[in-house]
Amino acid sequence: MTIYDHVLTENDFVHQNNLRYPFEERGLQFGDGIYEVIRVYGGKYYLIDEHVERLYRSAEAVKIEVPYKKEEMYERLNQLLQQNKVESDAKVYLQITRGSAPRDHAFPLDTDANLYAYVKDLPRAIDKMWDGVETITQHDVRWDWCYIKSLNLLPNVLAKQAATEEGCYEAVLHKDGEVTECSSSNVYLVRNGKVYTHPAKKNILHGCVRMRIEEFCRQEGITFKEESFRIEDFQYANEVFLTSSTSEVMPILKVDELTIGNGEPGRITRRLQELYEEDAGISEDQSLFKKNAKAQ
Amino acid sequence: MTIYDHVLTENDFVHQNNLRYPFEERGLQFGDGIYEVIRVYGGKYYLIDEHVERLYRSAEAVKIEVPYKKEEMYERLNQLLQQNKVESDAKVYLQITRGSAPRDHAFPLDTDANLYAYVKDLPRAIDKMWDGVETITQHDVRWDWCYIKSLNLLPNVLAKQAATEEGCYEAVLHKDGEVTECSSSNVYLVRNGKVYTHPAKKNILHGCVRMRIEEFCRQEGITFKEESFRIEDFQYANEVFLTSSTSEVMPILKVDELTIGNGEPGRITRRLQELYEEDAGISEDQSLFKKNAKAQ
Repeated sequence: MTIYDHVLTENDFVHQNNLRYPFEERGLQFGDGIYEVIRVYGGKYYLIDEHVERLYRSAEAVKIEVPYKKEEMYERLNQLLQQNKVESDAKVYLQITRGSAPRDHAFPLDTDANLYAYVKDLPRAIDKMWDGVETITQHDVRWDWCYIKSLNLLPNVLAKQAATEEGCYEAVLHKDGEVTECSSSNVYLVRNGKVYTHPAKKNILHGCVRMRIEEFCRQEGITFKEESFRIEDFQYANEVFLTSSTSEVMPILKVDELTIGNGEPGRITRRLQELYEEDAGISEDQSLFKKNAKAQ
Repeated sequence: MTIYDHVLTENDFVHQNNLRYPFEERGLQFGDGIYEVIRVYGGKYYLIDEHVERLYRSAEAVKIEVPYKKEEMYERLNQLLQQNKVESDAKVYLQITRGSAPRDHAFPLDTDANLYAYVKDLPRAIDKMWDGVETITQHDVRWDWCYIKSLNLLPNVLAKQAATEEGCYEAVLHKDGEVTECSSSNVYLVRNGKVYTHPAKKNILHGCVRMRIEEFCRQEGITFKEESFRIEDFQYANEVFLTSSTSEVMPILKVDELTIGNGEPGRITRRLQELYEEDAGISEDQSLFKKNAKAQ
């Protein structure tokens, strides 16, 4: 997976080889910044409005001034795809740090934010989305304000690593047994035809795909309940799945040693995958359902 | 305050002008790293063992391999002062990140940690230590593992900034009223001759100066109680102070609108300042007590 050459910065586009940061950068010394990962299908953004809106909300929450006004940000992000001639499935990683300044916890005066955004190819995880994945549980030790998509990701990193070392795809996080989300995705429990997920409070990220899932459920007449559940509730689940811009709608077949439902991706999860593909404008020949022989 | 030219890295010394980081650095994208700030008086380290030990403990907790073995680290840190011909009061900032690698929450394979350590002049805050400082209270929204001195410092940054905007020196953090520490220092309450501070659990940093304060109290026959206290308890305090490698022993005169004791630095705080100076080998003509006219 290579990064496309033209990287957007706070001023203009630079070649990736020329983008270097000083060691007194607040992103590097404090994790003092925010980010977004935006999905691109066939060279076109998906949920761009949701991501841009959240970016500005995060920035406001930590008092970082975004280098571009919202209108200009859309324009720049479009230029990013154009200049790199992106036509495939990809993702845009965009981060904004408070800038480069002598190290001091308090905000620097007269320092402008640093921004960079790059594009990287990202093929859809077709096989995993078809087959489903396994997960482990981990204590949610993160800070109280996970609704801010900040660069303070060390606890997420440690949880994901724990999952990886167990041969699992993700770590389901919980506070004293109450499930919050996963290390880099939102998680949902389906029981008796109803979809449950943790309320969009300050302690979880308000996922852009999560917003769409709520809308898909509304369209389909599926009850969507913002109601937290516990680790023990997984044993009563018919289906469990996670969502993120990278993972789309991903069936979870196991949580620790527990097999979910009958151990196969469930009916509602499959329907939400279909609705996701429609919403994202995935062409039929790129579809999860077309591609996978088992779907025939 | 300038940075001395020679910066130690994971390999060798480089001139600060030549130290640049790629944009896919895990410190810059995840805050995936740890750090120490070590105090230097008259060109000599203070509490170097405590800092080096904590560095390795933090590294182990987040599974980062320190580029130097402990013996070599001491040697390198001494070379850092020698090469820069440091003779004044200063600090060494040292950080280790998991390294530069394509962005992925899980640990990269075959990637070595990045390290840098630089020296910066840091005159003692004589006037503030003599006069005392004011503070505000802030909710402690940090993660559960603050005993790890990690680069995930956004909540600390936001708390310190709130204090700065109120014209205060520090923010006293509390979880539902229970005082933990400050945004970049430990905090202590003195009542009836006893010194109280939050137990060294996982949710606070185990300060190197804090360890010395415990020892100073033992030497002096002052009761040192690792017992948490609440915001409301400040009204019954005779003295309040904070400690850190940068702030040394700093009297707190106000917490929000509340004046502590008689509004002057207290007897025990002053005695601990004296013991700190002895322990750190501060010469008489550099002493807080000598320098400040009010002390005469």
